[in-house]
Amino acid sequence: MALVGGIEAGGTKFVCAIGDHTGEIRERVEIPTTFPAETMEEVIRFFHAYDIEALGIGSFGPIDVNRESPTYGFITSTPKQGWINYPIVSKMKEHFNVPIGFHTDVNAAALGEGTYGAAKGLDSCLYMTIGTGIGAGALVGGKLLQGHSHPEMGHILIRRHPEDYYQGKCPYHIDCFEGLAAGPAIEARYGMKANELEERSDVWELEAYYIAQALMNFILILSPQKIILGGGVMKQQQVFPKIRKQLETVLKGYVDTPNLQDYIVSPGLGNNSGIIGSLILAQQALHGKY
Amino acid sequence: MALVGGIEAGGTKFVCAIGDHTGEIRERVEIPTTFPAETMEEVIRFFHAYDIEALGIGSFGPIDVNRESPTYGFITSTPKQGWINYPIVSKMKEHFNVPIGFHTDVNAAALGEGTYGAAKGLDSCLYMTIGTGIGAGALVGGKLLQGHSHPEMGHILIRRHPEDYYQGKCPYHIDCFEGLAAGPAIEARYGMKANELEERSDVWELEAYYIAQALMNFILILSPQKIILGGGVMKQQQVFPKIRKQLETVLKGYVDTPNLQDYIVSPGLGNNSGIIGSLILAQQALHGKY
Ligand SMILES: Nc1ncnc2c1ncn2[C@@H]1O[C@H](COP(=O)(O)OP(=O)(O)O)[C@@H](O)[C@H]1O
Ligand SMILES: Nc1ncnc2c1ncn2[C@@H]1O[C@H](COP(=O)(O)OP(=O)(O)O)[C@@H](O)[C@H]1O
Ligand SMILES: [Zn+2]
Ligand SMILES: [Zn+2]
Repeated sequence: MALVGGIEAGGTKFVCAIGDHTGEIRERVEIPTTFPAETMEEVIRFFHAYDIEALGIGSFGPIDVNRESPTYGFITSTPKQGWINYPIVSKMKEHFNVPIGFHTDVNAAALGEGTYGAAKGLDSCLYMTIGTGIGAGALVGGKLLQGHSHPEMGHILIRRHPEDYYQGKCPYHIDCFEGLAAGPAIEARYGMKANELEERSDVWELEAYYIAQALMNFILILSPQKIILGGGVMKQQQVFPKIRKQLETVLKGYVDTPNLQDYIVSPGLGNNSGIIGSLILAQQALHGKY
Repeated sequence: MALVGGIEAGGTKFVCAIGDHTGEIRERVEIPTTFPAETMEEVIRFFHAYDIEALGIGSFGPIDVNRESPTYGFITSTPKQGWINYPIVSKMKEHFNVPIGFHTDVNAAALGEGTYGAAKGLDSCLYMTIGTGIGAGALVGGKLLQGHSHPEMGHILIRRHPEDYYQGKCPYHIDCFEGLAAGPAIEARYGMKANELEERSDVWELEAYYIAQALMNFILILSPQKIILGGGVMKQQQVFPKIRKQLETVLKGYVDTPNLQDYIVSPGLGNNSGIIGSLILAQQALHGKY
């Protein structure tokens, strides 16, 4: 039975795993993201212990996913020091001459959730992480969403709450969705760790206000069959009912959605959506599907 | 050679056409949209003169495009009098026992433009009409975008210009994108026909401000390879350069796009994007692809 490797490449850590065609994880390690030379050496050492026949990488971005491009397989304009224009795919290819699938971390997570998680059996879903940043990936018609490039949904423009005077934290757009609603924005607005704000219902009301607006736009544009919200901030389970309520308020019944209780949910695969999705990318690459 | 029929069903008129596999229109008529009994009788009479082997319908909406649903093929909650819950697909099926393809008018237009128009040869594009309402359709990975339902992109929430005091005209959301930027909103804001405002550059600057914001969100979510803007309002060619400029201002170089001059364009098929797309839907239905 063919073994494949998966890498969920994140700004804080790289998760590496070995799997087969079942979607189960056989081995799993976490390697801190420091500098490429150091991190990648450990990654490569891990996979050398196995006879993998394909590799899937779900990476932090922005990345170049256009197979015609000279910089295909690169992590491109990331703010993460040392990783700008890093050719992660060709680096792995030097050591493992196997087919390699390559997408964003959130697209990989959407694939994982659509195949084995909360959206299993559906041919469309949206996976969004709200953590240090905000990113989303989507399955559309059973395939990962990709056009000229990959989605960067965390940076859409939304309306500021009239009583929110926090300026915003996005280095590009200041008060885009990520700039107002990612973990660091919450922490800067209130001057406290997000997990220490647990009792402050106004904090999560405002957070839900922004998330609901973004979801409204995603629904009107993509009409996904399931919406999965992960990442550190979404550990605050109290946000979910607030999001559903605010979404009803803004949508005003204009479009039909599934029952919101079943529609807007936590990841079915817990913290493993991304790494399981990366293993599926490897399986797809093994079968010539990129 | 198989003849097929196409219907572009609009709130003002139905365009009906006969075509073959080449994408050329052989016959074309326009029938005013009055009440279903009257309009559909003429539509049916037109097609009875030909021996069509399939039919494609691109319809105003909202419509039910879910083939599992009991109301599949219905125009559903339209404000257009007489057409609420109108079963257009089964009505045509009573008279023509042929395969029928059914999508929104704007999805049909995206398909037309992606196959023979401005986005020919690309596997993704966005088609948006800005007229009496605002609607958009998209090709993603070569297929029409559809999830739980069809997109309703005209109703996304965008930020109001700080100096725009017009309240908005959407009966659902008041000041969503359509409520602020469709033709009737322009006319209500200034108390004049939109085409009589041609000389007023402030009018088109504000219009471009709203369109650029919406495009930013569409790009960050869908990353289409081409953006095609049609409909009555976009006859004001002066809006195009303003949109491109404002889009650069809001995107702030965060994502890579093709050169905006070639990226944001008028329909390659003129007024025929929708009807040609409907003929392609018919061809697809003939070959079992829905
Ligand atoms: N229990 C929690 N409650 C609220 N916010 C949290 C919690 N845990 C982490 N966060 C927030 O999530 C962010 C980290 O996101 P996470 O998804 O864990 O990592 P990353 O996005 O870096 O992969 C932190 O900035 C913090 O603000
Ligand atoms: N030359 C023009 N310049 C600006 N706006 C126009 C022009 N022609 C039509 N419009 C606007 O477009 C709207 C009609 O849109 P159109 O796309 O022609 O029809 P529909 O959306 O009903 O199919 C009108 O409300 C009008 O405001
Ligand atoms: Zn941003
Ligand atoms: Zn609206």
